[in-house]
Parts: sequence; C-alpha cells; structure tokens
Amino acid sequence: MASREIVVAVAGATGAVGREMLKILEERKFPAKEIRPLASSRSAGSGVEFAGGELTVQELTEDSFKGVDIALFSAGGSVSEKFAPIAAQSGCVVVDNSSAWRMDDRAPLVVPEVNPQDLEKHNGIIANPNCSTIQMVVVLKPLHDAGTIKRVVVSTYQAVSGTGQKAIDELQGQVRDLFNMQDPRVNVYPHRIAFNCLPHIDVFLDNDYTKEEMKMVNETKKIMGDDSIRVTATTVRVPVFYGHSESINIETVKKISAKEARAILFQAPGVEVLDNPRENIYPMAINAAGEDATFVGRIREDDTIDNGLNLWVVADNLRKGAALNTIQIAEELISRDLVRVNDTSVFA
Amino acid sequence: MASREIVVAVAGATGAVGREMLKILEERKFPAKEIRPLASSRSAGSGVEFAGGELTVQELTEDSFKGVDIALFSAGGSVSEKFAPIAAQSGCVVVDNSSAWRMDDRAPLVVPEVNPQDLEKHNGIIANPNCSTIQMVVVLKPLHDAGTIKRVVVSTYQAVSGTGQKAIDELQGQVRDLFNMQDPRVNVYPHRIAFNCLPHIDVFLDNDYTKEEMKMVNETKKIMGDDSIRVTATTVRVPVFYGHSESINIETVKKISAKEARAILFQAPGVEVLDNPRENIYPMAINAAGEDATFVGRIREDDTIDNGLNLWVVADNLRKGAALNTIQIAEELISRDLVRVNDTSVFA
Repeated sequence: MASREIVVAVAGATGAVGREMLKILEERKFPAKEIRPLASSRSAGSGVEFAGGELTVQELTEDSFKGVDIALFSAGGSVSEKFAPIAAQSGCVVVDNSSAWRMDDRAPLVVPEVNPQDLEKHNGIIANPNCSTIQMVVVLKPLHDAGTIKRVVVSTYQAVSGTGQKAIDELQGQVRDLFNMQDPRVNVYPHRIAFNCLPHIDVFLDNDYTKEEMKMVNETKKIMGDDSIRVTATTVRVPVFYGHSESINIETVKKISAKEARAILFQAPGVEVLDNPRENIYPMAINAAGEDATFVGRIREDDTIDNGLNLWVVADNLRKGAALNTIQIAEELISRDLVRVNDTSVFA
Repeated sequence: MASREIVVAVAGATGAVGREMLKILEERKFPAKEIRPLASSRSAGSGVEFAGGELTVQELTEDSFKGVDIALFSAGGSVSEKFAPIAAQSGCVVVDNSSAWRMDDRAPLVVPEVNPQDLEKHNGIIANPNCSTIQMVVVLKPLHDAGTIKRVVVSTYQAVSGTGQKAIDELQGQVRDLFNMQDPRVNVYPHRIAFNCLPHIDVFLDNDYTKEEMKMVNETKKIMGDDSIRVTATTVRVPVFYGHSESINIETVKKISAKEARAILFQAPGVEVLDNPRENIYPMAINAAGEDATFVGRIREDDTIDNGLNLWVVADNLRKGAALNTIQIAEELISRDLVRVNDTSVFA
C-alpha cells in the first residue's frame, strides 16, 4: 500500500493524549491522506486543531472504521475493549493506548526502539505500553543486551498530566487555593497533590501493589521478551505538571561499569544521556516536557552488589509515554508494510 | 545533677531548625532553668519567641558556654567545627545538628529509638544524623533486629525546608512567578524546583554520588552499629515544603512477611504504621508535617528476591529529621545522668 493512501482515525481525539497525537501527526508530517478524529457523541461535531485548520470530530460508532487503515485509540479501556476488535475485524490496524489489550497474548506490546519485530505477528490490535514502562525499557533494553538484567528496583516521580487534563487543572487549582489561604479542593486524587507526594497511582490490587506498579512488572517482561527480568516498583505521584522521573536500580549478570553504561546509552535509539553532575547536568521533568527523547543521567555503579547500576530516567509522559510511541508504532507498521490484518477472525 | 538546674544553649537560634528547637523545648516542657539563644553577631540583640515571651539572642563567642550544661547546635558545619570543641572543653555537652562531627570516631551519632546506648561513651560532642537517615533508621532498626538487613535501596522525595528558609521562600516565589506568567527566579538551587524534581541534594562527590546519598550510606552503618548493612541511595528534591518521603527496598537474611513487618513496626518506638491502601491510607508529607512520629506504610513483600520488602516512610524533616531528634538526645542524656564531660581533653 502506498503510504499516501493511508487513512488514520484518532479515537479519543478530544482528550489530552488524543490532542497530543494530532499535534505529533502534524509535526512528523505523518503520511496520511485523511485524519479522522473520533470521540463520544458528546464531542461529535466539535472541532479539533490540525495543521493550522480544524477537523470536525465524528462520533465513534461501529461504522467508524470503514475505509480506515490505522486507528490510534486513546479513549479509555472500556472503549478500547468494545471498539478495537470491531475495527480489527473490519481490517483496520488498531494501535491502542489503553491497558485493555496490553497483556493479551494476541496483541503485541511494542516500543519501537525495543521490540519492533513483535509487530510482524500482529492480528489487528497492537498495544501501546504504560507511560512509566515505556521510558524505563527504552533505557534498559540496550543495557540488557550488554549485560543481561536480572533485577530492577524502580521508584517513580510521576506528573499529574498522566491522569489527564482534570488532574492538571486540580494541581493548578490547589496551588491557587493554598496561595489564597483557601482550603484546596480535592476531587481527582483521594488526597491533595499540591506540595505533596502520593504513593498511589491507579487502583490497589490484592497484593497491596497498585495496578501501575504491576504494569511496570508485567509489561517490562512482555516488551523485553524475557520473563526472567524481575521488577519491583513503587509508583508515586508528585506535584509536577509534565514529565515522569524514575530512580532505577538494576542488577546485571555481566558487569557494566558506569562508563560503559554511558557509552552504550549514548548510542541507544531514542535515548539522550545528560550526565555531567559537576556542571549540574542531569535529566529534569521541566526540560523533558515537549521533547521526544528519553533522558538518562546520574549513572552510578552501585557497589552494594557485584553488578549494580543506579540511573535517573526522565521523559515526557504524554509524548514518549503515550502519543509519540503510538505514532512511532504506526510509522513502523508502514515502513514494514504491515498495515493490514491477515486474519480478521483473531479478535472476533 | 537535678534536671531543674540545667542551662541549655541553642546555637543558631534564629535559623529554621533553631526556631523549631525552641518551639519543641517549650512543647515538651524541657527541664531547664535557663534557655540561652546564641547566634552570629548579626542577630545578637534580636528577640526569639519562647513560651509566650521573648528571649534576647546573645552573640556566639568562645565565652558563650560558661555555665551551660547542654548546647544544641544548628548553626552550620563551620560554626560547629570551631565552637563545639570549645564548648566540650569547658565541660558543656554539645548535641550538634551539622554534619561536622557525624563520622568522627570520638562522637557518637545517635537516634534515641535506635542506639541510645552509644551516648554512654560520649566525650562532650554528640552528633545528630542527617534528616533522611534518621527517619530511615527509625523504621529499619526493628526490622534489622527481627531479620538482619543485608541491603537497602532507597530513593528519596525531600522537601525544600531541608535546605532552610531561603529555599521555602524560593519555591513560593517560583510558584508565584509562574502563576503570574513571569520567569521564575532561580537562586538557591541550580535549577527551578517548582513543579520539577532535582536529583541533586548537597554537593557531588568523586564517585558521582551526592554527599547526601553518601550520608545515608555511611551514617546508617554507624547508627545501626553494623558495617555489613549495604545501602545505595538516590536523593531527590521535590516541590514539597515540609516532610521528606522515602521509597525503601530492603533485603533481609531472615524472611519477614509484610504482616510480620506491620506487627513489628506497630510496636516500634517513634514509628506509626499507616497502611490501609484500600481506604487510601498511607503516609504523606502534608500529614507528617508538625508531627513527631515517623510514618510507614505501603508495606509489601518484594518477590523479586527471597527476603525482600518495600516500604514508604515519611517524617517531618525539621522535627524528627533535626530539632526533635536533637532534643530527644538531650532528654536521654538527662535521664541517663550523662550531662557531663568526663574527659575534656578528647576534643582539645
């Protein structure tokens, strides 16, 4: 299929990630002849900005995918559960940003810098990983290739934009309330996020870990294609608008010195090394916001074990953590000539 | 010595920690017949609040310790280096809040809930540990007693008040600037702290760890009296005013289940367990501020190793992390009848 003939649908076009997707499709001059924004009936008929003009949002229905080659979904788990199989059955390739299909054996879970080859076996639905996981595996993959990672201990510092526009508004509102000597209003999170840290992202599970923490554990294994990588995570929301930070401790089978790690990561796709502490250079959320790269610094050998490293990893959670990775998957599908569903019965 | 005869000096009485010390001396009805606030010549003559009245600040000089039984120091490392030995030589017992004497073999490094017995061998100078270390060891000690801790991986989320009043003002000022569409002024830290995370606390050392990170490594061993405990740390400043949070992963020799850990910590002195995730109950900086306890929650078994636990620990960095611990040491000195210097030549 000539790429210029491609029709792309964006399901959930009016949300924070959907809007970011449209922005990135435009920035990267994505080779589509049509971009079709889809949303719930509530938003249908409204306009979304694209390439200096406006596109009219259509209602997402079972008939929305006729003639669509690639559908980028970011409309929540239940919408994806219902509509992604319908799209796939009609021959449209879905790249889904929700958690609905990530651990489904029929759907590859892809970070283009890490496991693009997994796209080859897709059946119409491809899952985009969780934001915290994406930025971690982009950095861990080249180190895994060099020294085989046995164990990862990660603590996150996650921005409110990961929750959506309403959480951005809540942090702003709480700061305003506090600076005006008012009681801050608390709606989106169970507690105040302004000038606070919440060790609580997504819901708690039976094992007392949060769903976010277990996403980092399970998605990492699937993306890296290696069930032997053990991950334990503590995920924390911090009062930052854009950009997730992560403190990552790894143990490898083969020794990797800090210097070797820097050299490996310097060459790694999608990674930018910012590691000159003497000049106060290290990755920070405020600098990662709006950028495509995943930034890594504070690379130090951990001498409490034989083969240990500490890393500090930061990325824009709405871009590499969501919209950008989704579009990179779509680009990879095009360049590998995989924009078709060979067996439309897999998700039937 | 009858406790009512005790004279207490507070060196650095006009700083953030000094003021907190005066507040806590008052709150706890510390048994002193005189409180003598000391500061640099710049502040001498000014008043500090105490017990509804005001005390006049005296200039800190070599003669300030005549007739003083206990001197609480929080005036910075160089002041402590110079004046603590002078005080000790005059028979005054110094409890020092700076890092100047912490790793000196002649000075015990004490957290009263962990190693009060180390006070018995003091020679006139007792060191108060680093804030991040204090709240960590209060929680780790009972777990170490139960299962022997081999390794600790800790990532911190530290409040700006740890840097002092000027950093509190800077975070406030930057938030105001940003909300007024102004460029935020950056003076105290090398980068903006508002809505950002800085993986940089204290200065960088030759091994690329910060001094703060190495304090957590080395002070933990000294306080716990066990050089075999291996600690690796990543310390991070977050846009929070009061209260340090810590994500702590431990490996023990003997298995401790999450349930057992909760039971052990429930009985531990100075510790309060807040661990009911289903009710959204876990420690948070905004709740720890102003409190004496060290709070622990998110207690989970880490199944990536045989005997692993994850913990989330929060305390008020100005209280348990500094002023309160200093005063608790002074109280312990009184109750153990150790308010005297047996050999005034040790720090000569």
